[in-house]
Amino acid sequence: MRHLLTTKDVSRDAAIGLLDVAEDMAATQRREVKKLPTLRGKTVVNLFFEDSTRTRISFEAAAKRLSADVINFSAKGSSVSKGESLKDTAQTLEAMGADAVVIRHSSSGAPRTLASSGWISAGVMNAGDGMHEHPTQALLDAFTLRARTHGAATRGRGLDGLHIAIVGDILHSRVVRSNVWLLTTLGATVTIVAPPTLVPVDVSAWPVRVSYDLDEVLKTRPDAVMLLRIQAERMHDAFFPNSREYTRRWGLDDERFAMLPKSTIVMHPGPMNRGLEISSSAADSAQSTVREQVTNGVSVRMAALYLLLSGEREEIQ
Amino acid sequence: MRHLLTTKDVSRDAAIGLLDVAEDMAATQRREVKKLPTLRGKTVVNLFFEDSTRTRISFEAAAKRLSADVINFSAKGSSVSKGESLKDTAQTLEAMGADAVVIRHSSSGAPRTLASSGWISAGVMNAGDGMHEHPTQALLDAFTLRARTHGAATRGRGLDGLHIAIVGDILHSRVVRSNVWLLTTLGATVTIVAPPTLVPVDVSAWPVRVSYDLDEVLKTRPDAVMLLRIQAERMHDAFFPNSREYTRRWGLDDERFAMLPKSTIVMHPGPMNRGLEISSSAADSAQSTVREQVTNGVSVRMAALYLLLSGEREEIQ
Amino acid sequence: MRHLLTTKDVSRDAAIGLLDVAEDMAATQRREVKKLPTLRGKTVVNLFFEDSTRTRISFEAAAKRLSADVINFSAKGSSVSKGESLKDTAQTLEAMGADAVVIRHSSSGAPRTLASSGWISAGVMNAGDGMHEHPTQALLDAFTLRARTHGAATRGRGLDGLHIAIVGDILHSRVVRSNVWLLTTLGATVTIVAPPTLVPVDVSAWPVRVSYDLDEVLKTRPDAVMLLRIQAERMHDAFFPNSREYTRRWGLDDERFAMLPKSTIVMHPGPMNRGLEISSSAADSAQSTVREQVTNGVSVRMAALYLLLSGEREEIQ
Repeated sequence: MRHLLTTKDVSRDAAIGLLDVAEDMAATQRREVKKLPTLRGKTVVNLFFEDSTRTRISFEAAAKRLSADVINFSAKGSSVSKGESLKDTAQTLEAMGADAVVIRHSSSGAPRTLASSGWISAGVMNAGDGMHEHPTQALLDAFTLRARTHGAATRGRGLDGLHIAIVGDILHSRVVRSNVWLLTTLGATVTIVAPPTLVPVDVSAWPVRVSYDLDEVLKTRPDAVMLLRIQAERMHDAFFPNSREYTRRWGLDDERFAMLPKSTIVMHPGPMNRGLEISSSAADSAQSTVREQVTNGVSVRMAALYLLLSGEREEIQ
Repeated sequence: MRHLLTTKDVSRDAAIGLLDVAEDMAATQRREVKKLPTLRGKTVVNLFFEDSTRTRISFEAAAKRLSADVINFSAKGSSVSKGESLKDTAQTLEAMGADAVVIRHSSSGAPRTLASSGWISAGVMNAGDGMHEHPTQALLDAFTLRARTHGAATRGRGLDGLHIAIVGDILHSRVVRSNVWLLTTLGATVTIVAPPTLVPVDVSAWPVRVSYDLDEVLKTRPDAVMLLRIQAERMHDAFFPNSREYTRRWGLDDERFAMLPKSTIVMHPGPMNRGLEISSSAADSAQSTVREQVTNGVSVRMAALYLLLSGEREEIQ
Repeated sequence: MRHLLTTKDVSRDAAIGLLDVAEDMAATQRREVKKLPTLRGKTVVNLFFEDSTRTRISFEAAAKRLSADVINFSAKGSSVSKGESLKDTAQTLEAMGADAVVIRHSSSGAPRTLASSGWISAGVMNAGDGMHEHPTQALLDAFTLRARTHGAATRGRGLDGLHIAIVGDILHSRVVRSNVWLLTTLGATVTIVAPPTLVPVDVSAWPVRVSYDLDEVLKTRPDAVMLLRIQAERMHDAFFPNSREYTRRWGLDDERFAMLPKSTIVMHPGPMNRGLEISSSAADSAQSTVREQVTNGVSVRMAALYLLLSGEREEIQ
């Protein structure tokens, strides 16, 4: 793997291959000593133009468990805030010998710009760019779905036949975009559920069904319901329902949760707004995978860093 | 040791045991190569809801010298500041595989909430909570007193027969609370000296003598005088004497220091307000243990992390 | 080497010795596994009173590649901002067992104060102090010049006979001061080029020629032209030309760059203001060493940390 920018172009085989490596990583994380010498001497830079403590920590834990050196570069207060270009920042990191750059940026496309520019030879890992993609989040979601569905016999398998409902602010979500491409590549069908004003105009080009009615979708007994986080900063937007209205129509409240089949998985990328898009009883239930998703996030990121930094780095993407 | 939340319930034997381990750690810190492989593969998260660079660095140095991986999680700018609950933060750290969480919080009781909630299996280390406790500070103070008093023959011994005067803003101090429990458990007697408005109302339940007159207490020739830091933010409080008045009546100024027996130890948890609660000549004298306290802080925290993370973690507290 | 505070007192032999060690370090950085066990168990503290992400990261990468433990201490939000003195901060770091302190400070002379105070036994590395010095920047510039000039046969050699023009805000630049001492010690001649208001009054005591006319200096075909970064915060200063005027008279724009001999090296310490003090075509040309300078920065800092922390630390400075 040369870079990890998007899930859109990842083949089914490549995706399953990465999930299988993540399976191996997960096994090592259950051991007494979780550390592997695999990436000793490699330098991973967390280049965060946006705060995201959870994602940063997950990548940091993943890299350290593979014995890589981690350098955190928060763009705040750095020469970036003094007007340095992404190009010069990138070339600086390259020149210092960064082997991988994990980039979080508020502009959609910044990771691709970095990777395709020729500015750096380091592998680029997209840790979330604007409203575009968040590929490791989709990979950890797929990993979680696969483990819940197939138990111990996951190796080599996809998500064929599964039906996943993704609910929330689709318009602004990078999580949903990455998930749509990856889950469908792995054989699942996806239904998008959202307030009409929060569905992107180009959704007709997505391989999904669209609904504005959560109750109707839940009646179809999806295998998993993924709730997206409501961003507080969007709530003042004219296109956004108010929070009481949102919960009433698109929240997984206690009543809706009680009517779900016991086999339906409840997912959330975190951090949750309990009582808004998800009720506490749903979040803390046995059906919830919220904590597994976080655990699997470290394993999936270990796998991605491993594939990026060891062995041959093919020019897949 | 399951957690380290308070010194109140720590038995004399457990306290002496920890100080003895800290002694072993201190010995390794005097070697050319200070690093031990003991906690290799363990992950220690510094979860700081309040800034405290000195305490954070001391824990970071302690964990790194035991070869643990350290992840710093400053709650500022994180999803915590976006309204994430302590519960969700804790579960996220747990799910990422944190083995120990070192928590600093402005709310008294937050570490106990974290430890007793069942949210995490990681060991919880209280690095200071509100006006409540700061147990590793008390342990390093006890370690320092023991080393100064007994020299090389400290092992297995307490602080029996010592008299320690603690001077300052008792009301708001977490340091004094942790010290009162620990020092008396170890056999010392403690006298609290403070302006009347800065003595807590429940002090009658503490195993201490109370005085408002520093000079009178110094005449009793205490074995140690511990000055507390005056928090600048308290100085505007109506209950607080102004700084000139404070120094005149409760400061260890040059005159008082000159009258102290040469055997009396002068302690301060740092950072000091030189010229306010302590004069520079007192702070820099041979009787002062200010620097030893910092050095011992790393050894004591190494011991505490070691007891938390290796071997059996009994449910003592 | 006891400390690295200035390049002013460094002898030619000591400078060449350090560059030769940096050469060895650079060789290890081209290997697959860049990490050396050399400083395992040593603790390097980055004590930054000013933000400087690039310099901090370069030192952090250098220390980690030598297997030292690195602790970042940003003075913002620390007890330093609560009024703790440099003395108490230093003694705290010392007491925690810091082996080297890399200090960045807005006050000229702070590193020397720290080193000569007797407060600490740790080695002190000046990472930039006020308008005074930035010795590792000068060392990496010298390293870069030596490598470009002598190719593979650099060992033991200086910069004899080279002519270097340094262009920009000389008055406020710590980079230029460190470079003037070091480059001339190594045998080069230096010409300073600046707006008349931005030349220091004591420049007559410097071993340099002074010019206000860039075009005239370029006609002398210098071996290297080093552009200094224009600090945006200076631009509002009455003594500062406006940016259009600056570029027209002292910028290495496309026209000037085109007239330079192809053998003239173009240097910049970064981050660059493209279009202001340097044009993009100059910055990205084969003559530019901007990226090499960053790479060499890590090697030079590895060498300096190595000389500071291993073997005998003589009292040279």
